[in-house]
Amino acid sequence: MSSSSHLPASTPNDGDRPWLKWPHELPPISEARQTPEFHAFQDEERHRKMHKEIRDRIFAGVSVALSPSPNSAILLAGGTSVDFELYDTDVLKTEFRQEQFFRYIFGVNYPDCYGIIDLDKKETVLFITPGTDESERWEGERRPMDYYSKRFGMDATHPVSELDQVLQSRGIKNLFTLEGTNLDSGNATRTRPNFPGMEKYNEDKTKLYPFLAELRVCKTAEEIRLLRLANLVSSAAHVYVMRHARAGLVELQLESLFKAWCGFFGAARHCAYTCICGSGAHGSILHYGHAERPNERVVQDGDRVVLDMGAEYDGYATDITRSYPINGKFTADQKMVHDAVVDAQQSVIKALKPGVDYRDMHQLAERVILKHLLAAGLLQGGSVDELMSAHMASVFMPHGLGHLLGMAVHDVGGYLPGENRTPTPGLSYLRLGRKLQAGMVLTVEPGIYFNQPTLDKALRNPAQSKYINQDVLKRFLGTGGCRMEDDVLITENGAENMTILPTTVEEIEQVMAEANKIRAAGKA
Amino acid sequence: MSSSSHLPASTPNDGDRPWLKWPHELPPISEARQTPEFHAFQDEERHRKMHKEIRDRIFAGVSVALSPSPNSAILLAGGTSVDFELYDTDVLKTEFRQEQFFRYIFGVNYPDCYGIIDLDKKETVLFITPGTDESERWEGERRPMDYYSKRFGMDATHPVSELDQVLQSRGIKNLFTLEGTNLDSGNATRTRPNFPGMEKYNEDKTKLYPFLAELRVCKTAEEIRLLRLANLVSSAAHVYVMRHARAGLVELQLESLFKAWCGFFGAARHCAYTCICGSGAHGSILHYGHAERPNERVVQDGDRVVLDMGAEYDGYATDITRSYPINGKFTADQKMVHDAVVDAQQSVIKALKPGVDYRDMHQLAERVILKHLLAAGLLQGGSVDELMSAHMASVFMPHGLGHLLGMAVHDVGGYLPGENRTPTPGLSYLRLGRKLQAGMVLTVEPGIYFNQPTLDKALRNPAQSKYINQDVLKRFLGTGGCRMEDDVLITENGAENMTILPTTVEEIEQVMAEANKIRAAGKA
Repeated sequence: MSSSSHLPASTPNDGDRPWLKWPHELPPISEARQTPEFHAFQDEERHRKMHKEIRDRIFAGVSVALSPSPNSAILLAGGTSVDFELYDTDVLKTEFRQEQFFRYIFGVNYPDCYGIIDLDKKETVLFITPGTDESERWEGERRPMDYYSKRFGMDATHPVSELDQVLQSRGIKNLFTLEGTNLDSGNATRTRPNFPGMEKYNEDKTKLYPFLAELRVCKTAEEIRLLRLANLVSSAAHVYVMRHARAGLVELQLESLFKAWCGFFGAARHCAYTCICGSGAHGSILHYGHAERPNERVVQDGDRVVLDMGAEYDGYATDITRSYPINGKFTADQKMVHDAVVDAQQSVIKALKPGVDYRDMHQLAERVILKHLLAAGLLQGGSVDELMSAHMASVFMPHGLGHLLGMAVHDVGGYLPGENRTPTPGLSYLRLGRKLQAGMVLTVEPGIYFNQPTLDKALRNPAQSKYINQDVLKRFLGTGGCRMEDDVLITENGAENMTILPTTVEEIEQVMAEANKIRAAGKA
Repeated sequence: MSSSSHLPASTPNDGDRPWLKWPHELPPISEARQTPEFHAFQDEERHRKMHKEIRDRIFAGVSVALSPSPNSAILLAGGTSVDFELYDTDVLKTEFRQEQFFRYIFGVNYPDCYGIIDLDKKETVLFITPGTDESERWEGERRPMDYYSKRFGMDATHPVSELDQVLQSRGIKNLFTLEGTNLDSGNATRTRPNFPGMEKYNEDKTKLYPFLAELRVCKTAEEIRLLRLANLVSSAAHVYVMRHARAGLVELQLESLFKAWCGFFGAARHCAYTCICGSGAHGSILHYGHAERPNERVVQDGDRVVLDMGAEYDGYATDITRSYPINGKFTADQKMVHDAVVDAQQSVIKALKPGVDYRDMHQLAERVILKHLLAAGLLQGGSVDELMSAHMASVFMPHGLGHLLGMAVHDVGGYLPGENRTPTPGLSYLRLGRKLQAGMVLTVEPGIYFNQPTLDKALRNPAQSKYINQDVLKRFLGTGGCRMEDDVLITENGAENMTILPTTVEEIEQVMAEANKIRAAGKA
């Protein structure tokens, strides 16, 4: 690690406005920097330790959760390379990424693996698809089986072809396998084990998923460390984008700058999700940036941008949004919207602690937003309570306040097993509806949007339209939206904001004014 | 478009060593540049024109290739969003990318579409999955059907639910559908049409694939224009990387710099394949950079890097490799290897023209490489002819000379229908084994590698080991490899190299010396 660090300190709360000291540029040719710290942070020893701790938590919880008879093992299939193939071609859609339950337990990001946890012997065994002459030519030299055991802290490693034989030699008769439905996507797990001889074993498909999903809800100390690092990477990348933001760029260029920082300085090859870079009216499209609307608009002076972008660092996700005027100077209307969203966000973060129900936080955010919209005259004719009853907040914030975060950007365990979303408009969008516990990491992401179809629906509904001052609303039509999203850790006594970014109007204007000054000097 | 262009001229052969004028840096904050030209090049009108021309070629060839009875249509299913989902989660592996035959004909990069070509009426109809209230909230406002018809030059657009009904109303009874096997991957096509009522139609699954695959072999003028632009993007990005390359960087940082240039200046959101950034011994791993070896090594002074990276521009692929010492100065041994590879590459490019068989070109490259290795004393004890008979070239170049390039990086049609690879070692690796025609675009990518498992095999084989001077070989063990890869268009009389990059030792050293000078000044 270089002594003259150009990277954010790894203690998130180190100093006031740490972003002011972060690097402005990708290194020009003239700079000879050391290997960036984030690359060095990827430490195999800590990696092994983290997954060992996770397996120890499994051993500690297994008798209650699975009540295994003797001769039982947990068996997981990892992701396959076939699943990543781009149609019939021989290239991949993107580099292979491991199925997250598998990576959680075994820490292995290679395709075509199996893994077992022998519950009698408390041992973990990895099964890999070994190299061939052909794969050696394309993908590199074969590694001995004990390479994998050492690298990932396994008790043993075998070729997948020996799976049945190893289970037999260990006397395994009962297998717990992973079958469940992701609450956010509604999709079932897709990595079904399938090997010759599998029919011999008693298979329990029901108990493992809820056990592991619940285990992933509260993060270990090492997981929290990774999520902090991931947040540092994404935070610094957001500041880099903020400094380069200006009218005339294509939205995709903002995405490119973000990815460049994350990859070059942050050792992050992937984003945790598609970059959402909506400018102007596009800011009101919650998941803008997909293939049909691929961040292709030229940002205009006066536009606000909604930049929802997060790196994935060593398998852990971030999910961060900053919204600001592209020219660095908020108008009065932009400031009103921004202040309302930040007030909602900060009010929630202040209130977070173990025992708090996140559904209450969602409604707290809604109330703060309504209070501001009333004060601004955009809403009228009722108290905050009356507006809450008419579900007016969901007209402007048609999404949930936040969700759990971990290996997945929408992490598992948002509701307790057997519980479901509250059907009330607004709450019905919420992906996290349970009491908070220390060790949870979650997003706090209130927003206000002027989304035409959503507004049209409200204006057609007399129970809602009566509260909207259409004269005032007119000023906001076509201006998109504002979302502010941080990643927060629930601690024993409260919460720690892992995201370190300019947030208030004043903080953002300071960073952008500095950049504009540098730009003006460059032009002169 | 800005008048003071900072981008490569769009005429590839414009001026001597054009790369010397290309931008050194991602724009620093101080620079206020215009919207890059490459973003402006994505022109909807030309896009429509290109796919219309492609469909006109289909209409022109269809009676011979498919001999359709009346009441026939071509029916294609596009790629699905489900296929891009990351396991059970609600994020995608990467942004959706269309199946290439579908995109070729219809030009549409949206998921969950169908398309038909009515062969009687000579009309093209698109079927899309229309928006819902829910998708409007996440993905943006619904668009009217005629938006799609106008955007993509279709005769009509309908919701997919009306597919059967539209076929009926047009009197279609016979469907030509796409079923075939990709020669490079050995994988079958995966976008099988499946809609209620499909059983009513006579289906021909055999004739369409060979017809369309053969059509894709020779590019239209507009496709060639896109491939030229794609090559400009990737070429300039390679120069950007070359200028920033230095010991101490992680291989992944070279990948990041490449992607940053392609995305920011080049409007390229995707690479055409996983970036291969092998340093030192890793340079001998042909497809290094995959999930198990994810470009994670710190490059050491004295190492050579093999950088095989190509952007995808508007659906068209590039495939370009440059190899050079990270410190910018070739040693005598590095120069010998480099000169041999460049001589092989340039000898082939000079010989390219319609009628030439690419198998002969592969063997020409092998002969040039053997000549150089003999002269260097690494090989001995036989003539080039004898070494060819002993397949010595494939010990050092265990891959084919090149392949067709187009929408896919390994494009379809590398062998004539019914023909297969020649089993001779070396030739057996070749993905392109046919006579060249004007309009083909192909890669020329000879290489020399010191790959330990491959060398071990040769040293164990007396028929090969007798030609290897092991004393000389020792100097090269662990030094990885060298590959030089350009994308070349076959013209009426010869060939046009679309890739515009420093190639010779002298050209590369010039660019890197200039960068090293700037770096030294920055340090002082």
